[in-house]
Amino acid sequence: MTESSNSLPEARLARMGLTLGAAPQAVGQYAPWLRVGNVIHTSGQFPWRDGVYGHLAYTGRIGGAGGLSVEQGYACAQLAALSALAQLKHAVGDLTRIRQIVRIDGHLQTGEGFHDHATVLDGASDLFNEVLGASGRHTRSALGLYQTALDSPVLIYVMAEVG
Amino acid sequence: MTESSNSLPEARLARMGLTLGAAPQAVGQYAPWLRVGNVIHTSGQFPWRDGVYGHLAYTGRIGGAGGLSVEQGYACAQLAALSALAQLKHAVGDLTRIRQIVRIDGHLQTGEGFHDHATVLDGASDLFNEVLGASGRHTRSALGLYQTALDSPVLIYVMAEVG
Amino acid sequence: MTESSNSLPEARLARMGLTLGAAPQAVGQYAPWLRVGNVIHTSGQFPWRDGVYGHLAYTGRIGGAGGLSVEQGYACAQLAALSALAQLKHAVGDLTRIRQIVRIDGHLQTGEGFHDHATVLDGASDLFNEVLGASGRHTRSALGLYQTALDSPVLIYVMAEVG
Repeated sequence: MTESSNSLPEARLARMGLTLGAAPQAVGQYAPWLRVGNVIHTSGQFPWRDGVYGHLAYTGRIGGAGGLSVEQGYACAQLAALSALAQLKHAVGDLTRIRQIVRIDGHLQTGEGFHDHATVLDGASDLFNEVLGASGRHTRSALGLYQTALDSPVLIYVMAEVG
Repeated sequence: MTESSNSLPEARLARMGLTLGAAPQAVGQYAPWLRVGNVIHTSGQFPWRDGVYGHLAYTGRIGGAGGLSVEQGYACAQLAALSALAQLKHAVGDLTRIRQIVRIDGHLQTGEGFHDHATVLDGASDLFNEVLGASGRHTRSALGLYQTALDSPVLIYVMAEVG
Repeated sequence: MTESSNSLPEARLARMGLTLGAAPQAVGQYAPWLRVGNVIHTSGQFPWRDGVYGHLAYTGRIGGAGGLSVEQGYACAQLAALSALAQLKHAVGDLTRIRQIVRIDGHLQTGEGFHDHATVLDGASDLFNEVLGASGRHTRSALGLYQTALDSPVLIYVMAEVG
């Protein structure tokens, strides 16, 4: 199969067994994404089950007594990053128009004593790096929050430059 | 009464029973706002009583045992957003010069088990949407922090594009 | 001693008894800094001992029972800010090319009842103001997180405009 250049990011997703769903709606009186000049900002992306708004794949804390494992946290970060990619596709039509992922802000709901934010958030970073190549390279923030919206273990926010 | 176009945002505020105070000062060695190119960034805005620096309208956690209610949280978010509007007016002279509110970062000091960040932060979002119309549309982040500066239940940060 | 204009920021550092180390590497699959147009974003900067990646000068919470003091928190913020300056120097070659520090995001791992984020983060703000003068003026966010990556008491993120 020859991949056309404009399907390359989604072909890479398919090879990872992942598909882009529709861009999930917001959970309040704000926009899921906004483009200002050549920069797109997304609001917080949740790890929806099968990428469909309404049911989170996981809830609760990562780490601590009775909390989710690092592997489950990684899966949440990947799912939330997938929703972010769906927002970016909705914003620009085709992911090949993304020149650079500038920033990923990663919000974790962490249990007492958990400090391995980096491994969890690599679930998002690995996806962007794999799917977008050099354009997926990004800076990152890692926050261990006390309480997240909707009890979500992970939220991912993305800032991207459009070509 | 005919509203001149440049008083429209403040006329809308007046109809909501709200007025803009002076832009509150910073609480440390930083600037309350900064303009870089056509983008204005504000530092954290607190829910000052009557918009006057020094006395917070509320302190403490939102939700949890003995915490503030969602309605009180909503009021805090509205007050902090009002301070953000005062900063923007200070920065550009007239709120009609705001082309787009790009981003609202909403920091909440939340009690155990509280996850309704969205309803609280709609106190800020509703204000921007109401006062600035389409220019008030924005992306948003929602953080449930463990401890905020000054024990404030809500802080609001704004990034805005100037026309 | 006559200071050449391009060594001025580092001469000021030297007068404070501080030196810039190498720009520390990232702790996950992301970039320590990225330049997009004339804006540089850094990822989270830790208070490494002697500016060398691998050993934090401090770990744990600021404030609360058995926590670090405000003075220790201030020292952490200064160390993390020093790492941010090392990233900026790595990005642009010479700190005199920094036109404006736009934003400092300050993440604190705080103990129960601690709310003096401002004094702690002045450890970063004072450094930028002292070393870069008017170009060091910045907006700031202050977050009291539940759990930080690597149990670090402080992380500093910087956005800067390049001349």
